Amino acid sequence: MENALFRDASIDDLPDIVRMLADDFLGAQRERYVHPLPEVYLRAFQEIEADENNRLIVAELDGEVVGTLQLSLTPSISFQGGKRATVESVRVEKKFRGSGIGRRMMMWTIELAKDKGCISVQLTTNADREDARRFYEQLGFKASHVGMKLSLK
Amino acid sequence: MENALFRDASIDDLPDIVRMLADDFLGAQRERYVHPLPEVYLRAFQEIEADENNRLIVAELDGEVVGTLQLSLTPSISFQGGKRATVESVRVEKKFRGSGIGRRMMMWTIELAKDKGCISVQLTTNADREDARRFYEQLGFKASHVGMKLSLK
Repeated sequence: MENALFRDASIDDLPDIVRMLADDFLGAQRERYVHPLPEVYLRAFQEIEADENNRLIVAELDGEVVGTLQLSLTPSISFQGGKRATVESVRVEKKFRGSGIGRRMMMWTIELAKDKGCISVQLTTNADREDARRFYEQLGFKASHVGMKLSLK
Repeated sequence: MENALFRDASIDDLPDIVRMLADDFLGAQRERYVHPLPEVYLRAFQEIEADENNRLIVAELDGEVVGTLQLSLTPSISFQGGKRATVESVRVEKKFRGSGIGRRMMMWTIELAKDKGCISVQLTTNADREDARRFYEQLGFKASHVGMKLSLK
């Protein structure tokens, strides 16, 4: 793992990111990983890039993109004006799961959130993702909340 | 409830907002509702106001501020570039709980999220807030996720 690198994604990384999002038992039903990539993904990338409180991150190993997540910073009144960090859409390439690269990507992101002055990092994980909860608990996350969603589609 | 109004908060609403955040069994340990209001709250308000993807909302009843929440819009690659709406820091003045004003504030916010093109509204609620989960379920939210937090303090 000597050649691991964590950085903001560029537009050239987008196909790798969508491939990883789609290569997942839940993502397979949600994403469209085709060539050329549907325009909706490019527009979303541009919106993230234009928003200084949102960052799309990739993990690189020996020059290959093998992990991704999105970090959102949210200014907030509660907790005495405590800024929050939220992590979403965490994925690691199947053949690198269990290698430690996901853990390192999360630790790098947690340091970034600290540098930005956040008081906490939060995330929700689908109740069906049994391994994910254990992964986050090993990083120190506490399952203190219920995550609720309302679909608008 | 004829004179209910929902709108973006102004700086003049900030003391009412902090009072509601503090008047809560969890918030009481977290907030500092004193006069003058600690500078950290003003700075957070300015950060929210400067961020077009974050909105601090208040509910007004006969000219009195009786509810608040924060709405965050998050551009996202997953779900085919589906923008998310997140609701945080929901509070209703104690004497108006159960009056329906909280429900109307949420419904107004859900419509706003739809107008902004969001595919879903998400939130987490502390597992200790027993009434809150039922309140959100009645609005159509599904408790499909585990909400995890890592404190950085």
